Amino acid sequence: MSIKVGIYGYGNLGRGIENAIRQNPDMELVAVFTRRAPETLKIGTEGVKVEHVSAAESYKNKIDVMILCGGSATDLPVQTPELAKMFTVVDSFDTHARIPEHFDNVDSAAKEGGNVAVISCGWDPGMFSLNRLYASAVLPEGEDYTFWGKGVSQGHSDAVRRIEGVLDAKQYTIPVESALEAVRSGSAPTLTTREKHTRECFVVADENADKERIEKEIKEMPNYFADYDTTVHFISMEEFKREHSSIPHGGFVIRTGKTGANKENTHVIEYSLKLDSNPEFTASVIVAFARAAVRLANKGETGCKTVFDIPPALLSIQSAEELRAHLL
Amino acid sequence: MSIKVGIYGYGNLGRGIENAIRQNPDMELVAVFTRRAPETLKIGTEGVKVEHVSAAESYKNKIDVMILCGGSATDLPVQTPELAKMFTVVDSFDTHARIPEHFDNVDSAAKEGGNVAVISCGWDPGMFSLNRLYASAVLPEGEDYTFWGKGVSQGHSDAVRRIEGVLDAKQYTIPVESALEAVRSGSAPTLTTREKHTRECFVVADENADKERIEKEIKEMPNYFADYDTTVHFISMEEFKREHSSIPHGGFVIRTGKTGANKENTHVIEYSLKLDSNPEFTASVIVAFARAAVRLANKGETGCKTVFDIPPALLSIQSAEELRAHLL
Repeated sequence: MSIKVGIYGYGNLGRGIENAIRQNPDMELVAVFTRRAPETLKIGTEGVKVEHVSAAESYKNKIDVMILCGGSATDLPVQTPELAKMFTVVDSFDTHARIPEHFDNVDSAAKEGGNVAVISCGWDPGMFSLNRLYASAVLPEGEDYTFWGKGVSQGHSDAVRRIEGVLDAKQYTIPVESALEAVRSGSAPTLTTREKHTRECFVVADENADKERIEKEIKEMPNYFADYDTTVHFISMEEFKREHSSIPHGGFVIRTGKTGANKENTHVIEYSLKLDSNPEFTASVIVAFARAAVRLANKGETGCKTVFDIPPALLSIQSAEELRAHLL
Repeated sequence: MSIKVGIYGYGNLGRGIENAIRQNPDMELVAVFTRRAPETLKIGTEGVKVEHVSAAESYKNKIDVMILCGGSATDLPVQTPELAKMFTVVDSFDTHARIPEHFDNVDSAAKEGGNVAVISCGWDPGMFSLNRLYASAVLPEGEDYTFWGKGVSQGHSDAVRRIEGVLDAKQYTIPVESALEAVRSGSAPTLTTREKHTRECFVVADENADKERIEKEIKEMPNYFADYDTTVHFISMEEFKREHSSIPHGGFVIRTGKTGANKENTHVIEYSLKLDSNPEFTASVIVAFARAAVRLANKGETGCKTVFDIPPALLSIQSAEELRAHLL
């Protein structure tokens, strides 16, 4: 019997989930839930219902797992606890500092509903977190480094777009190659924010706008740009649409550590991602964890889980025997 | 209360376990078990008992986990089931083709004893297996590649040493850089054995030996060398001892896969290890899984497990709350 999935929210991530479900033959998309008028929404899968979010409760017995595709700022802190009372849910809550609080809220709700909830799925938090955990458990005496990019930061792109006179903008986060090499050497360098990443902005400005002022506002923006070396390029809308329409991302998690009677041996563990589409890869991770969530729920577990709590075998469509025979 | 560990077998791996335990403050080495005469064995930790293997049973209530450090060819197939009847055990059984059989034997024994057994820990099988599993679950439509090296293959070095006229030898497995680059490009190439790795041998020959014959015997050895491009260097015993006494290793697990409505996006997931000491890193992995094994046993679980079955959080000395706050 296939796993029946609902998608709650249909932006880039929701569409990614829809595509990912098609790549997993044990899964079936049952309905997409939207805050918009359902009849205005055209989705990519024929025969699948589009419903208003207010109809979700009526799907309580028709859906095995609801995948929440809202944003971390305002949507998920409300939606995940609310829906965890009714469904097994998975979200991609990615505000690292607020994870403990979100975990507690979702845990109470999921236990109240007798459901499983998996939060903070994706690649960071998600696959990167797993690699930080495994590497630090294996090499207790060592240093962790996470680099992001080259890729588009949605939050930074939004911040640039809010500047007066900016019509559109995209911001790329770029890891500094020499910093990566220093880390890989095992020398355990101490790196400042500025030494790890640079930022590059491609901006379409209104023809009457003061470009000098825009560039200054970007480079001096606190939290977002002030601590980095930032390059700003003004380009035409035509070039922007042609060259900057995709959403690539990626990054590196590296841990170096010492072992031996006199700590004489150095080891380097490196995990990296090079992604053509950030939302589609995030969706692919979420769908694998949705399978695990359903399996945990079927075993009678309840409450909030993270990627740290889930036996890896539960993510795979293959049986334990197949995994041992072919992947171990 | 600290986790009480026994080490069963005291070669390179056993010494690595001993050092790794010192890096994990929640663990304590209780005894080392050897087939040699115990009084002839000098270990690195003061105050720890050295016992003959025949005394193991008397430690049934004094040890939380026994770590088996024997070889996969003849030791572990016998020792792991035998000891799993008495203890929570962890081994590094690495004969991939025989894992299903070993799993079944150990599973029966562990269930009979009411114990947990974790088999095939290390980096391959082990961390590489985990990365193959996660990556294939996340990108169901894709290709897997594992490259080993640059590093010393113990089995291949042994094979060279068995050739008549060879006094000592070390064999390095080297991944072919252009093959790695082709894989990373996402082009999903089909690679032959010869295209993925080369082999390099450093050989100390008896002064009267026929070097041409030795080189020919190496290069034509079926299974070990015949399918590879192999380079053979004859060096002096002095140079051998100076330059080839360490046991480095490492490698790469790469999966590339497609997503999107029309499979238009490519993603590359890469995990790599660069290890100064193969046995010490293997030991570090095993010790983390030994912690998990004890925690599973404390929860009342029994039977054989692999790295695929173990929730990652159980490997870490940190609490679930700390992990969520700092590593997620």
